[in-house]
Amino acid sequence: MVGHTGVVLALDSLPGGCEDAKCLENLIPMFAGVKVGLPLLLRGGPKLLEEIAEVSKKYGVLRIADFKLADIGDVMSSSLEATWRLGYDVAIAHAFVGIRGGLDALMVRASELGIKIALLVSMSHEGSKEFYDKHFHEFLTIARGLGVWGVVVPATRPHLISEARAMLESSVRILSPGVGTQGAGYGTAMCRGADYEIIGRSVVKAPNPLEASARILKEVEETVRTCRASYV
Amino acid sequence: MVGHTGVVLALDSLPGGCEDAKCLENLIPMFAGVKVGLPLLLRGGPKLLEEIAEVSKKYGVLRIADFKLADIGDVMSSSLEATWRLGYDVAIAHAFVGIRGGLDALMVRASELGIKIALLVSMSHEGSKEFYDKHFHEFLTIARGLGVWGVVVPATRPHLISEARAMLESSVRILSPGVGTQGAGYGTAMCRGADYEIIGRSVVKAPNPLEASARILKEVEETVRTCRASYV
Repeated sequence: MVGHTGVVLALDSLPGGCEDAKCLENLIPMFAGVKVGLPLLLRGGPKLLEEIAEVSKKYGVLRIADFKLADIGDVMSSSLEATWRLGYDVAIAHAFVGIRGGLDALMVRASELGIKIALLVSMSHEGSKEFYDKHFHEFLTIARGLGVWGVVVPATRPHLISEARAMLESSVRILSPGVGTQGAGYGTAMCRGADYEIIGRSVVKAPNPLEASARILKEVEETVRTCRASYV
Repeated sequence: MVGHTGVVLALDSLPGGCEDAKCLENLIPMFAGVKVGLPLLLRGGPKLLEEIAEVSKKYGVLRIADFKLADIGDVMSSSLEATWRLGYDVAIAHAFVGIRGGLDALMVRASELGIKIALLVSMSHEGSKEFYDKHFHEFLTIARGLGVWGVVVPATRPHLISEARAMLESSVRILSPGVGTQGAGYGTAMCRGADYEIIGRSVVKAPNPLEASARILKEVEETVRTCRASYV
């Protein structure tokens, strides 16, 4: 676990009034990781993403590129290489695309580049139950077989986090979005066994992101301390 | 159908020696549409995509943004809005994310913006058989229910194109990748009922992309003429 907590800041947009990575200099070091997504890439371009990676690297903060790769192997590998060049050390890909000519090619390229793959095995919205979650155990089996660095399991489906934790080796990181605005309580995913909780809008849309971060991080720590104490 | 053929040029990278949209001025008007993807966005940035859309619009060529949207509704909607601002009129999204809190939100935003959605219902690589294709008929049902503008069905699974054509209203466009480098013959998807065939590397990686395009477009036309004649 990087940093003093396992909380990752999701940047699908920048905080109000912030237009480049400079104004993130105080915010980023509060977190264990930053996660950038497609909306930010489309608006800010690769240069902004590169600057965010630079600031994060300076403070030893994990850089996660969340473009939810879901294409044929060649295209995912090409995106992966570009992502790596921008300075990111983890890339998130969808398990749904399958192995042959898809995830197998991605894993080969990831290993060559030295970039880590986190496999999405369930999603935080209701629609995840329609198709995705029907294959949850198969996706965990794929994650094990491919030897991925981590998996993404939403905090809005806490029982899936427990199942993933039980089924995967302890070295496999569980990243959990869905706390805060999406409804799950701060710290609840870590109490179930997640290594990282991903928080976005609760910070980015707050009138004072630094203050909101401090409050949220404290709440995460307290919740985790309480639930861990109850296991003693 | 836009243009004189239904062939769409996929730009995951630019042709060799070409570094901006200017050198596409002769190439783009040969096609019915252009399709840009994540690798190009990561390398060239939103400005390049905007320029490609401008050139395409000038010649009445369809602009397709293929970021394979596969996220929760809020994030897909945010990406969709940014895509629309860059000048694109079609966006491709994955069916497997499901409707509730996913595709339903995307369709609402698409309708507000006046941007068309093409739903990916099968993929061209072997891994598509592992999960994706098991839900093919369900995905077509979703496509009908949501009233999408089009669906994406790969030329490497020709029987799926026939099934989609039989199940969907004739106004629903079928876009088909997988011809050329990926193995399916030029024109074969249109012979099965596709409205558009998507060609990428066969043109972009060719020593002379204009010459390669002319040759490929001729081959598509001849194949389509022959197969249509055999139905008379």
